[in-house]
Amino acid sequence: MARKVKVHVYLKPGVLDVQGKAVEGALHSLGWPGVANARVGKMIEFDLADDVADPEAEVKRMCETLLANTVIESYRVEVA
Amino acid sequence: MARKVKVHVYLKPGVLDVQGKAVEGALHSLGWPGVANARVGKMIEFDLADDVADPEAEVKRMCETLLANTVIESYRVEVA
Repeated sequence: MARKVKVHVYLKPGVLDVQGKAVEGALHSLGWPGVANARVGKMIEFDLADDVADPEAEVKRMCETLLANTVIESYRVEVA
Repeated sequence: MARKVKVHVYLKPGVLDVQGKAVEGALHSLGWPGVANARVGKMIEFDLADDVADPEAEVKRMCETLLANTVIESYRVEVA
């Protein structure tokens, strides 16, 4: 069985989240004024072969290389 | 204190996930052949005012109205 990997990628605090602002504005217009601080992030899920040694470190390398733009984004890795 | 709400939006199984395919292809090219079944989803987080009655139902209505395209997407709601 392959391992299930989940990567959450979200903008660092302080970076303007235009997509989040758009969602918040739309929810306000639709009649939900109680919504605040909306942020939109990405979630990448995949299966990783069992023969990969040290999967956590390997997935971290994937994030640094491809999955996250570490200048403005943070990530969190879950390997199950 | 406002409630923290997390909404995960992902494509329904069977719907072709082109973004996931692109991520998978890129990871293969970068030297990680052990990656399979990559899927990319969205995560929307926001604060919800305490005076909202039945927050779970209310957030579900937000998903149906705006946050998810229920023809091709599923969602999961977490209210903390």
